[in-house]
Amino acid sequence: MKSLIANRMQGISPFYVMELLQRAKQLEQQGRDIIHMEIGEPDFATPDAVIGAAQQCLQEGQVKYTAAAGLPALREAIAGYYKDHYQVNIAKERIFVTPGASGAFLLALGVSLNGGEEILMADPCYPCNDNFVRLFEGKSRFVNVTAESRYQLNAELIRQHWRENCKGAVIASPSNPTGTVIEAGVLKAAIEQTRALQGCFYSDEIYHGLVYGQPSASALQYSDEVFVINSFSKFFGMTGWRIGWLVAPEAFIDPVERLAQNLFIATSTHSQYAALASFSPENTQELERRRREFAKRRDFLYENLLKLGFIIDCKPEGAFYIYANCSRFSDDSFRFAKELLESEGVAVTPGKDFGKNNDNFYIRFAYTASIDRMADALNRLERFLCR
Amino acid sequence: MKSLIANRMQGISPFYVMELLQRAKQLEQQGRDIIHMEIGEPDFATPDAVIGAAQQCLQEGQVKYTAAAGLPALREAIAGYYKDHYQVNIAKERIFVTPGASGAFLLALGVSLNGGEEILMADPCYPCNDNFVRLFEGKSRFVNVTAESRYQLNAELIRQHWRENCKGAVIASPSNPTGTVIEAGVLKAAIEQTRALQGCFYSDEIYHGLVYGQPSASALQYSDEVFVINSFSKFFGMTGWRIGWLVAPEAFIDPVERLAQNLFIATSTHSQYAALASFSPENTQELERRRREFAKRRDFLYENLLKLGFIIDCKPEGAFYIYANCSRFSDDSFRFAKELLESEGVAVTPGKDFGKNNDNFYIRFAYTASIDRMADALNRLERFLCR
Repeated sequence: MKSLIANRMQGISPFYVMELLQRAKQLEQQGRDIIHMEIGEPDFATPDAVIGAAQQCLQEGQVKYTAAAGLPALREAIAGYYKDHYQVNIAKERIFVTPGASGAFLLALGVSLNGGEEILMADPCYPCNDNFVRLFEGKSRFVNVTAESRYQLNAELIRQHWRENCKGAVIASPSNPTGTVIEAGVLKAAIEQTRALQGCFYSDEIYHGLVYGQPSASALQYSDEVFVINSFSKFFGMTGWRIGWLVAPEAFIDPVERLAQNLFIATSTHSQYAALASFSPENTQELERRRREFAKRRDFLYENLLKLGFIIDCKPEGAFYIYANCSRFSDDSFRFAKELLESEGVAVTPGKDFGKNNDNFYIRFAYTASIDRMADALNRLERFLCR
Repeated sequence: MKSLIANRMQGISPFYVMELLQRAKQLEQQGRDIIHMEIGEPDFATPDAVIGAAQQCLQEGQVKYTAAAGLPALREAIAGYYKDHYQVNIAKERIFVTPGASGAFLLALGVSLNGGEEILMADPCYPCNDNFVRLFEGKSRFVNVTAESRYQLNAELIRQHWRENCKGAVIASPSNPTGTVIEAGVLKAAIEQTRALQGCFYSDEIYHGLVYGQPSASALQYSDEVFVINSFSKFFGMTGWRIGWLVAPEAFIDPVERLAQNLFIATSTHSQYAALASFSPENTQELERRRREFAKRRDFLYENLLKLGFIIDCKPEGAFYIYANCSRFSDDSFRFAKELLESEGVAVTPGKDFGKNNDNFYIRFAYTASIDRMADALNRLERFLCR
């Protein structure tokens, strides 16, 4: 039955880190202590206010479908969030609640990308982006980025790499895996350049809020004609709830609505009621406390990785990742990651999962473990490097 | 920005019933009493056992991502369900937990359908099926079905309508909108015919369990080389939880896993823990009680619609729908539905939502309202017909 597999699946790779994760589990079952720095998921529990709201929703027992676009109250609350945090007015009709940022990206590309068209994106970047493009028979045009552009696309790179069949450009800031944040002016110019080329601009803002320097600018501050993908997973600490949102340009409201009806029916009802509680003052304080903890971890890990000899040529200012160059120790970072796991029980993600731009020299550390655990990991890492 | 909309969106229609639903809400806001017989959602609350399991999961607070394919315990429980109810052994590796049946269908077509290929399906059928095919740049080849084949495809229809570029056939039993159930022997022959044509067979079994005559046969009883789509929404009463599953042929395990990782990351964690409680003896009894209530409603509505003069030429034996021919009263069922809503406050779904096969003569009644409410609706309907 092999021949019945759709052609698109040839290009859709697994996450290489899964191989490491599986091995890590085996080792744990054998009694080994594994320090997980590979996982893109905050180690904090879902905030109490959010849990409480979900429990109240469940007590009432009526967990019925919501409208495809989401609970009106939640769409309004998200609009309020844009008003409070970015000083922009977004009509709630442009906001669609989705099953995670994955659902938001699926909708954004589904309504805009034709088969054969290309999407510009940075290499390295989050691997699913390319796979969403492949799903719709499009093609990703990768632009190798470096510390020079803070590992981000910019107007000049977009102009240089744009081709006739390009449909749009994706910018993710803070970036996974590099943790770098695009400057507000650079973002603005990138949007203008993309719009001038009559392309769609997709802004992946799922790590917004998790920044340790300047606040991150939203694409919506500069244009209404952009797609913005966001999520309750990372900053709001709601990974397993699978809830995010899409802000679409006005002309796309109707197609996004139609596609959402068909693809999802709706997002989980209790996740939506839970997410509503995310914006309470009580929860906002809790999230700020967590953000400060992540900032400490970033400083701790950054300084210690430099000390050990890793090269980090652009200090990460957001998300919870450090993309470290390990070329002083290895030219095969996947093998490096596998050996590190076997001999020291420290799990990290190989560059291979994020593209082909010198990926063999990079590994991604997630600081989703406590400082104590990371201190232990760094000791093990030091021992590993001195083998 | 209109021109930037992807071509596929031209063919993806909204649900026409949404127009009626919106109007129904307006009327309700004006104080009118609306009887809802348009909604494909059981009116029962989520069963207590399921709510309890979700609450326990939330109390523990750790709502983290699960594996993309789902909680191992849930995959095992689903395998157990197949063993108990259909006497078939399904390796749990072939079972993927998904965000609703929508997610399951997205995976099944995503891993198998190439752009330009065709999928056979009955007309009338569930409208999203065609739209999923369009999403992947495929084409639905609709086969007009009648009472002669119980509004189902069969081996002969599949053979007749198969073309070189056909990739597979979808059978949905019990069917939405007709509520008809395919006979076991007909299902078996349809699978064999499709396999002989080297096509993929997709069996939509989301209304399994909700049958009022013979138990419904699963495609898995006749072949391991089929895709089976199922859901916790309908029989298990978990609509708003957005959880379903896909059973894939062994050769597709790896591609389905890769696509699921990319499209969803995972299904909501608490929905998965909640679904686990669905299989308890306590809950099984509660679901049986509900099934018997649906059976009573089916009998009540069926007999009374016939009395009023609707034509139902194949008695529905499953799901919670009656697809009634209203040609004695109207040749424009959409208008009929709109007028019925305006003048009597009864909401039903027009045939237009399910295809082009004499759709103008049909409306779908959902018996997701109590017998008392339906009695009221039938009185109103009688008054409406005697205008």
